[in-house]
Order: sequence, then structure tokens, then C-alpha cells
Amino acid sequence: MTRTVYVNGQYLPETEATVSIFDRGFLMADGVYEVTSVLDGKLIDFAGHLRRLQRSLDELEMKNPLSEDEWLAVHRELVARNGVEEGMVYLQVTRGNPGDRDFAWAADVAPTVVLFTQTKPGLADNPQARTGIRVISVPDIRWGRRDIKTVQLLYPSMGKMMAKKAGVDDAWFTEDGFVTEGTSNNVYIIRGNRIVTRPLSSEILHGITRSAVLRFAAEAQYEVEERAFTVEEAQGADEAFLTSASAFVMPVVELDGAAIGTGKPGPVATRLREIYLDEMRKAAV
Amino acid sequence: MTRTVYVNGQYLPETEATVSIFDRGFLMADGVYEVTSVLDGKLIDFAGHLRRLQRSLDELEMKNPLSEDEWLAVHRELVARNGVEEGMVYLQVTRGNPGDRDFAWAADVAPTVVLFTQTKPGLADNPQARTGIRVISVPDIRWGRRDIKTVQLLYPSMGKMMAKKAGVDDAWFTEDGFVTEGTSNNVYIIRGNRIVTRPLSSEILHGITRSAVLRFAAEAQYEVEERAFTVEEAQGADEAFLTSASAFVMPVVELDGAAIGTGKPGPVATRLREIYLDEMRKAAV
Repeated sequence: MTRTVYVNGQYLPETEATVSIFDRGFLMADGVYEVTSVLDGKLIDFAGHLRRLQRSLDELEMKNPLSEDEWLAVHRELVARNGVEEGMVYLQVTRGNPGDRDFAWAADVAPTVVLFTQTKPGLADNPQARTGIRVISVPDIRWGRRDIKTVQLLYPSMGKMMAKKAGVDDAWFTEDGFVTEGTSNNVYIIRGNRIVTRPLSSEILHGITRSAVLRFAAEAQYEVEERAFTVEEAQGADEAFLTSASAFVMPVVELDGAAIGTGKPGPVATRLREIYLDEMRKAAV
Repeated sequence: MTRTVYVNGQYLPETEATVSIFDRGFLMADGVYEVTSVLDGKLIDFAGHLRRLQRSLDELEMKNPLSEDEWLAVHRELVARNGVEEGMVYLQVTRGNPGDRDFAWAADVAPTVVLFTQTKPGLADNPQARTGIRVISVPDIRWGRRDIKTVQLLYPSMGKMMAKKAGVDDAWFTEDGFVTEGTSNNVYIIRGNRIVTRPLSSEILHGITRSAVLRFAAEAQYEVEERAFTVEEAQGADEAFLTSASAFVMPVVELDGAAIGTGKPGPVATRLREIYLDEMRKAAV
């Protein structure tokens, strides 16, 4: 089946969806993105993703090309046209096509707007959430503004491939002896009743799912401690997990070959996943 | 006039030159590039650029989609069709369009190949080379593999814009107290008969022009010392300059508001520019 995608105001078959070779997104990675999950045909934490999009655009001095209502309308139209019950909507905004290549940019070029859906049956009832995933640590050599959700995803892609070659599911980045985050997710360890995760800074993505999960964790009477942790501390933790818009809350049961806790998903991560999915389904738009 | 550009085997008007929105170059900055200068309608140091392209592709485990003869033929065809006497040929290779977005990549996807020309009359007889350029220093927050010439150029673009806002021509990146390089060039200072420049590592681009200029400098009896230097040392130098494929050898006469040497292009940078252009014109293809 051919997807319908959105490019600069037009709904097109995916095979006809193109951008100019002069687009700054293609020539210079000058663009930002968001991924919103879809459950029961509805958007999960959509307001959060729009807020972060605005922040990314502001940090790069780019104008937001659509209003909140317009963004919502395009998302809903794509979900409807493609019959997405479970999956994601991907959106990307670039600094557009100035007509030629130049490091300097002009403020009067119209941004490029691209959206497409991905259908993922079983996104919520993911079997990986019942077994947990295994990760390796790799050095974090990304640029210094990881809080801006740019399309500079080459190193996260390389991290995924390093994990694949090592026969595991994902990679955790480490810098100056501490874990920063996963290739496309925020990471956490659990000791007793306490959830430990790195504080927000330019060193990590400001996860939308992170924000919601920490709120739900506090409401459920868990202690939340925001500080960096090491690989060794994670290996000695009771549980570990990661969060992202499409993985929700995912237990991590092995790091660099060492089992974490029992080597199986623990009660805290499992409960947080349930709470997150329940609450977010209720609030979905 | 509409340029003719090259996209995946086809010569097209620039207005019709597009890539899929699913191209990994657009979604993930998963691509590399080269820029070769054209003088007298001929390619400058073409073999050097092809060597570095191969290295970038090897580092990212991408196949080289064209042979050396094919690369040369496409470059020459574009120069001829667009009547370029002075300017550049830009080439970009990405990991192609796998049909959907995924961090992991598959080895069997055909790479995307894009080339286009830029006409720049006065590239060699650049008036800036007679006055020198002024730069500011800004923190280097790029990723850790700057030796791979990827399209992750957002921060170099931001550096250019910071320079523009400060009313100067370019920015030099600094890290751990030392200058790494310029936004799109390698940098040098001169003390007496000695040229100082940072040694090759993953922290800087392995400049093709750098390599040729250091060879010519040694042949002209200058001493070459490869070590890092600070902003303060550069401000106290006799001369400074930068090299790149399109700026050749460009004198730098001011750094963070302080004049370097006399505040005018010095004899060493001026002579190196002459030698470089003379030798490279002779060897052009």
C-alpha cells in the first residue's frame, strides 16, 4: 500500500514526495523533527511535541511554519488517510531551499515541511516490553546541543549499528564517565523506590515522554533523583529502563553483557509503562 | 540561467532536481560531500578530493557509487554544460532511500549521488585576498569525527551567522583553549619563517588544500610545525591565514578584534597563495 505523505501543503503518494537537492535539510542538516505516537488512531502527548518543536525552532532562529491547529489538522489528516491505528507521525521542518548552497542563511526563505506516518501494529503491546532489551555503552561524540532535536542523526544511527553488530538492541552513550542517554531515548536506573535519571541540560534531549513519566512516577510515590550515573552503577541497579515517544517505557535488562537486577523486567518499570500508557491513552487527541 | 545538475545518473534542470523525503541525507544527515574548485574551466586538485571522498565513505561503511573515471566525467560534463570558467563543483553522496525511516541502515540500498556547479567569477583574483579577512572565535561544539566530511553542517552554519552578526567574515572554533579550525577551512599562524598549524586528528578536517599548501611551504623553505595554538598566540603572530578548496590561501588579519601583525596580508600568506594558485593551475584537469 502506498502511503500518503505531506510536503509543503500537499498530500502526495510517498513515491512522489520529494524535496529540492538545494534544501538546507539535505545539504546541511539544517532542520528539526518530532515523532508523535498514535494509539487507537489518536495522537499521544501531541501538545508536548508541539512545545518541543517550538523550542527547537526558536533555538535555531527558524519560524514555525504552521499554527498549532494546522499542525493538528495535518497530523489527523495523515492518520485518517493512512488508516493508522497504532504507529507514529513523523514531522520535519527545515530552513528550506534558498536556491543555492551557502553556509550563511537568509531569514526570508520559506521552511520546508514534511510529514509522514508509520504503521506499527503492536506498538503498545510490544513483546520487547515483556522481555526487556539489551544495550551496550559507546562513547558519546555528538555535538554539544543535543537539547535541540535536529536531524543530525548520523552518530545515533552509527550507535544503533554498533549495537546490532554486538548482537544487542540499542546503545547507551557515555561521556566523561557518565551515561548521557540512548541513541533515541532517555535512560533511567532504579534503586529500591528511587528513580535516577540525568538532569536536563544541553547534553541530552529534553524528552517529552521523560517529562510525563517523571510526573507519573512522582504521583505514584516514587522518589525521583535527577543526577548522572555511571555504567557500573547502572549494572548494579535493581532495574533500568528507557523512555521515548515510540518505545514509551521500555525495560533494559542488560548493559555491556552484565544482567541488571534479575535480568528480567522489574516491577517499577513495568508499572510505569502501564501507568504511562493508561494515562496517555486517556489524554490522547 | 538555469543550471544543469546531476542526480543519480540524470542531468536535469536545477528546478527539477529532487531527492525523496525518505533519503537518509534528508532525514538523518547520513551523507558526505566534496567541493572542487574550477579555474580556467579545469578541476583543481581533483585527485585529492576523490581520495578524501573515498576515505569519508570508508569511515561510514558506504560504497563508492562511481569509479574515478566516472566521477571525472560527471564533473567535466557539468562544467561544460554550465560553462563554468571559475567556480566550484559540489558533490554529495548519501546512504540513499531505504523507503522508510529507520536509525539502522541496510547495506543493499543504492546511494544517492548529487552534483551541481556554482559559478564564481573572481574566485582566484578575490579582492578579499588583498585586504585579508576578519574572524571571531567561538566554542567548537561539533561532533567528534570532524575528519569525516559529513553534511552535518548546522553548527558551521551557525558559526558563519555568529560571524555575520559580529560584523566580521568568519569564525574560528576553539576547544579546550586551542583553535581547532574555521567553519569550513583549516587555519595557520606564522612566526618569522615558521608556519604553525594543528596536526591531523579526528578533531579537524583533513584539508586537501592544507596538504598541498604544507607541501609547497616546505618546498619554499618555510618551517612547518604541526601543533595546536591558542587565540592569544594567534593574535600575537606575524601573520595568519586559512586554507580551503574555494578560498585557496586566505590571509586573516584580525581575530576577536585584535589586529594580527600589521593588520594587512603579510608576505608569507601572500606568497603561499601565489605558489598554490600557480602550481594548481598547472596541475588542473
